[in-house]
Amino acid sequence: MRGILFRYEALLPLTEATPRLSLCEGQTPLIPLENLGRELSVDLRAKFEGANPTGSFKDRGMVLAVAKAIEGGAKAVVCASTGNTSAAAAAYAARAGIPCFVLLPAGKVARGKLAQALIYGARVVAVRGNFDRALDLAKQASEDLGLAIVNSVNPFRLLGQQSAAWEICDELGEAPDWLAIPVGNAGNISAYWAGFNRYRELGRTATVPAMIGVQAAGAAPLVEGHPVDEPETVATAIRIGRPVNAEKARRAVAESGGQFLAVTDEEILAAQRLLASREGVFAEPASCASVAGLLKLHRAGRLPQGIRIAAVLTGNGLKDPDAALAQVPEPVEIDDSWDSLREVLSR
Amino acid sequence: MRGILFRYEALLPLTEATPRLSLCEGQTPLIPLENLGRELSVDLRAKFEGANPTGSFKDRGMVLAVAKAIEGGAKAVVCASTGNTSAAAAAYAARAGIPCFVLLPAGKVARGKLAQALIYGARVVAVRGNFDRALDLAKQASEDLGLAIVNSVNPFRLLGQQSAAWEICDELGEAPDWLAIPVGNAGNISAYWAGFNRYRELGRTATVPAMIGVQAAGAAPLVEGHPVDEPETVATAIRIGRPVNAEKARRAVAESGGQFLAVTDEEILAAQRLLASREGVFAEPASCASVAGLLKLHRAGRLPQGIRIAAVLTGNGLKDPDAALAQVPEPVEIDDSWDSLREVLSR
Repeated sequence: MRGILFRYEALLPLTEATPRLSLCEGQTPLIPLENLGRELSVDLRAKFEGANPTGSFKDRGMVLAVAKAIEGGAKAVVCASTGNTSAAAAAYAARAGIPCFVLLPAGKVARGKLAQALIYGARVVAVRGNFDRALDLAKQASEDLGLAIVNSVNPFRLLGQQSAAWEICDELGEAPDWLAIPVGNAGNISAYWAGFNRYRELGRTATVPAMIGVQAAGAAPLVEGHPVDEPETVATAIRIGRPVNAEKARRAVAESGGQFLAVTDEEILAAQRLLASREGVFAEPASCASVAGLLKLHRAGRLPQGIRIAAVLTGNGLKDPDAALAQVPEPVEIDDSWDSLREVLSR
Repeated sequence: MRGILFRYEALLPLTEATPRLSLCEGQTPLIPLENLGRELSVDLRAKFEGANPTGSFKDRGMVLAVAKAIEGGAKAVVCASTGNTSAAAAAYAARAGIPCFVLLPAGKVARGKLAQALIYGARVVAVRGNFDRALDLAKQASEDLGLAIVNSVNPFRLLGQQSAAWEICDELGEAPDWLAIPVGNAGNISAYWAGFNRYRELGRTATVPAMIGVQAAGAAPLVEGHPVDEPETVATAIRIGRPVNAEKARRAVAESGGQFLAVTDEEILAAQRLLASREGVFAEPASCASVAGLLKLHRAGRLPQGIRIAAVLTGNGLKDPDAALAQVPEPVEIDDSWDSLREVLSR
C-alpha cells in the first residue's frame, strides 16, 4: 500500500524526475452511513478523508504539489492556510527534507491543526488579518523570494485531489448519483468534478454525479453570489470569503445539475453530533457541512428517495477537539467507590 | 473496503448471529521510514494505527468485542480507559445503537480522546483515582449490573487486535525481523505475538519477529519486574502500573527472543518530534515509545544492522495536541504587511 503517486501514476503528470513522495495518503474508507441513510431513504456513504496521514483530504494534492516543487528545484514551500493545508504542506515538506513556511490568520486556527504544522517542523507565522490577506502575502513570498506556493492556486493540488473521485468510482464500480461536499476555497469541489469527468472520458464510469456544494451560512459567497468580506463560522476550514476557485465550482454545479446551499453553524454542529453519536464517525465541523446540507434538503422535501450519495467528510474530528468539547456535557466526576459509581449508573 | 470482520472473517470467532459491525477499521498504512531507517541502517516501517476510524489500534479489537456483546444480548457496554479504549468503545457502541459507559481517571486523559468519547455519545464518568481503580469499578459494573465489559480483559479485544500482525505479514509477504511496540496494559504486544504465531501455524509466514516491548520509564512494571503504584509519564496511553496482560507479554518477549526496555519522557517526546519533522508522521506520545526504544538501542550499539523492523505507532498525534504544543515554539505573530513578512522570512 503506497500513496496516490504510485496508485494513479498513469493519471498524474509525473516524469522520471518526479520524486515518488508518499505518506500512504488516499485509499480512505467509503463508510456506509446505514443509520442516517435509512432515515433519509437514500444509500448514503461517507468518504472519510480524516483517515489520511495528516487527517484531511489536503494530503492528496499536497503530495503531488511538493513532489513537483522538488522536481522544479524549489528549496522551500510556502502556503497560507486555515489549518489543514498547513498540516499537509508541513508534513510532506518534512518528508521531502525541505523547509515549509506557513501563514495562518492569527487566532482563527483550530488547536489540532496548529499543533500539526509546528511539530512537523514548519516555520509558522500568524498574520493579523483574515485568510485572504494571508494568501496574498504567501503569493508575494512566492513571487519575490522564489518559494514554491502550495496553496490551491498551485495546479498540482487540484490534480492530486481528483484521486478521491477516482477512488469512489473504483470502489462503487460507478459514480454515485450525488456528491455532497463542503465548499470553502472551492478547490475540492472543482477537483472532484474534474476527477469524475476524467473517469467518464476514460470509460471508467458511465455517469457523473450531481455536485451538491454546501457552504457555511456566515461564509457563503457562492450561495449569495458575491464575496463575503468578514466570513464567520465555527467551521474554520471553510471560513473563506473570496474562494480562489469560485468560477470552477460554479461550472461544476451548473454542468452537473447540482446546487449550492448554505447551512447554519447550528446545523453543522448538529450534523457533527449526529454523525458521531449515530454512526460512530467523528469529522471536523467543516466536514459535516456536507451531511448538514443533505439533512436540510431532506427536511425541505428536496432529497430524492433511493439515490446513492457520497458525502465527503473532509477532515478528522480530532483536528478540532475544542469544537467538539464546546457542545457536549462535562464528564460526571466521582470518588473511586462502587457506591458512587452505582449511583451514577442508575440515574 | 470494509473492516476486519469482513477481511478476516475466517480467522475470527464469528457466527451467523454476529453482527458484521464495521467502521472500515484496519488496513492501516505500513509507512516506510526512509529517513530514520537510513540513519539507523535498518529497513524501518511504521504501522500507523492512527489511520483507524477513531485514531488508534483499539478499533481492531473493539469492533469484535462490541459485535460479540450484541450477539450475546448485552444492552450496554462499559470500559475503563486512559482514552483510546473509550473512544473506540463509544464509537462502535454508537454505530451499533447501544449505550456506552466510560470510566476515566480524572484529569489524566488527553483532550482529543475526551472529546471523542463525549461526542460519540458515551456517558463519561471521571473517577478520582488511577486507571487501575477505574478498571476495578468497570469490572464490578459488569458483574453486578450485567453490562458487557470491553476492556482488554474481554478476550475478543485481543483476538481482533491480532489483525494488525496479519496485515503486516500480508503486506510484507513475511514477518519482519523485529516488532517494536509500546507497552502499557500489555494487551497489544500479546495480541501481535498471538497473531504472528497464528499466521505461522497457518503457513502464511515462515518466521515470527523478536518482540521489542517499550515502556515509559515512569510506568515500567515489565522492565522493573514489579507493579508500579503511581505510574507517571507524558505518554498517557501507557501510564499503567499493573498491566492486565503482564504474563502474556512476558511470554511473548521470552519466546520470541525479544526484550523489554524503558525510555524516558524526554526520549519519547524527542522521538515524536523526530517522526514528525523528519518523516511527516505525527503519532501520539505513547506511540513514539516504540521508535524511542529503537533509537536508544541504536545509541547503545545494540541494534543489528540491515534487519527489517516494524514499529507500531499505536495512535494519532491529533489525539493529544497539547502534548505536541507543549514542546514546539509559539508561532511568530505579525501585521498583515509584506514588509513584516519579508523581515520574518529573511531571519
